[in-house]
Amino acid sequence: MEDEFQFIKNITPKQTNQSSLVKGIGDDAALFRGSSDYEEIVCVDTMVEDVHFNRKTMPPWNIGYKALAANVSDVAAMGGIPTYYVVSIAIPPTWKDEEVYEIYQGMTALASTYKMDVIGGDTVSTSDRLVISVTVLGRVEKGRHLLRENAKPGDIAFVTGDVGASAAGLELLLQFGHTHLFTENEQKLVDAHQRPLPQVKAGRVLAESGLRLSLNDISDGIASEVNEIAEASHVKIVIDREKIPFASQLHIYSQKQIDTYGLFGGEDFQLIGTVAKSDWPQLTQKFGQAGITVSRIGEVYDGESKAYIKVADNIIPLEKSGYNHFNR
Amino acid sequence: MEDEFQFIKNITPKQTNQSSLVKGIGDDAALFRGSSDYEEIVCVDTMVEDVHFNRKTMPPWNIGYKALAANVSDVAAMGGIPTYYVVSIAIPPTWKDEEVYEIYQGMTALASTYKMDVIGGDTVSTSDRLVISVTVLGRVEKGRHLLRENAKPGDIAFVTGDVGASAAGLELLLQFGHTHLFTENEQKLVDAHQRPLPQVKAGRVLAESGLRLSLNDISDGIASEVNEIAEASHVKIVIDREKIPFASQLHIYSQKQIDTYGLFGGEDFQLIGTVAKSDWPQLTQKFGQAGITVSRIGEVYDGESKAYIKVADNIIPLEKSGYNHFNR
Repeated sequence: MEDEFQFIKNITPKQTNQSSLVKGIGDDAALFRGSSDYEEIVCVDTMVEDVHFNRKTMPPWNIGYKALAANVSDVAAMGGIPTYYVVSIAIPPTWKDEEVYEIYQGMTALASTYKMDVIGGDTVSTSDRLVISVTVLGRVEKGRHLLRENAKPGDIAFVTGDVGASAAGLELLLQFGHTHLFTENEQKLVDAHQRPLPQVKAGRVLAESGLRLSLNDISDGIASEVNEIAEASHVKIVIDREKIPFASQLHIYSQKQIDTYGLFGGEDFQLIGTVAKSDWPQLTQKFGQAGITVSRIGEVYDGESKAYIKVADNIIPLEKSGYNHFNR
Repeated sequence: MEDEFQFIKNITPKQTNQSSLVKGIGDDAALFRGSSDYEEIVCVDTMVEDVHFNRKTMPPWNIGYKALAANVSDVAAMGGIPTYYVVSIAIPPTWKDEEVYEIYQGMTALASTYKMDVIGGDTVSTSDRLVISVTVLGRVEKGRHLLRENAKPGDIAFVTGDVGASAAGLELLLQFGHTHLFTENEQKLVDAHQRPLPQVKAGRVLAESGLRLSLNDISDGIASEVNEIAEASHVKIVIDREKIPFASQLHIYSQKQIDTYGLFGGEDFQLIGTVAKSDWPQLTQKFGQAGITVSRIGEVYDGESKAYIKVADNIIPLEKSGYNHFNR
């Protein structure tokens, strides 16, 4: 952790219904040093058993990893540095202490990647489904935060890495369960779902570039995120299906399935955004130096706040989600 | 909100399982301005239906109010100014939209008292019990935060306001339910349980005094909090039962019940702490100017990290909680 991110202390834990295993992080308050050079970022994400995850698709370690990853991805989408996190878990009696411990281990593993510290939490009992709520704090240099609302006509649209693997992995996990023996190709898809890597490094390249950018992370699928940028920026965005970097492991599926996973499947945690056409060469160079793959996938136009997709020579509306009709 | 607490913006909401009623605060990320003059405080508290509250004792409005109040009280215990809060609620189908709306209204009412802004949240579905997790952010001038660990032999122990009403109110609510028609005296006890006021103003008087102080908020009863200060500060603290400001509405109960409510009942949200004997006159003057009641209830000694209570002329160990034996 850099010096300016100085964690001061956890406050002595109070008596709560804490599991004995997690007492060490059962603090309910913490202090850290503020800095006028930064804007503070706060992100929260809550996951409920059998709504956002289930035991068939995710071992406890991955549930923890992913609960934190979803928030870190939100920080990355603002170009921020994740610094601290606070965890709140409501645990039903059907969960063993060891399983809850594994949830925390999964978070710790991801946190160590970013040198984040857990600075508090609350572990309570509940009767039925496990609920995990993670709050992540982060920072970005003053005036450098990235938002969805800065796209302008003439921009090009880009996406980091590749997309679709997470959604395909989820389908495999729903079908076979996480204890199934998958093929090597399938396992890569499963890994993409269970352990997606938030693109903090890419977000930092973008924030440090000082360029005018719009940015979003892919948590609900490209189609949803491009529409969000279009709406927030009041522009029309057209992406080209030919240019979308579908994950190579998707080759085992039909084009229709690939479209579904890549456009409407979520949780790839890649970054998607727009930048002025004239700044694009500079940005690709910076991404190249950082070893980050980036693809140009479309263009921004004047027009109503909507996303479109070019398929063959047709430009058709790209809905946020649900079954889409452009394959007919 | 003072100028230095500059909230920048909520990020456009993502698609979640939000109730239509709470979309406005369903943002998952927010930005605010950092300041090098302050230390940032983060507090989190999670409440589960039928574990920490239930529908018999608390209408939805009060559930929201109290979930926020518990965290604000933690900020007050550090001498801090509460600034922002983030709410995460997992809602089962047994709760109506209007009830969830009332939960948010209860939080908004308390937040307006302190000019706090809600800067994010996550509303998701769950199958069974309502889970509400609130994260409160706050600030305290650099180096001015108050902790439990600063008590020294020779200090006097003090408590703000009065104690015991909240626990007595809870017992009435458990017995009769919140729709019962209570006597005027009983209703005051019920109100103390349903709408305790966090002592932010008292905390600020203490932080601004610049004195060496130890401090804690009463969320688990005086007995528990005094023990926490004793443990954190490695001192012995003796409080005097005759000096404890039991709430006047408790006069309807036996001395044994009054002791139980006042010493072992929680959630009064008053502040309890210690200060050097020589600084006590100065502190009482400051509290007097601020219109805050404060009582001197004991003294700090060299000795093992434990709390004691003086009853008549006997000094006996004061356990943190559970049935206590000093009435025999």
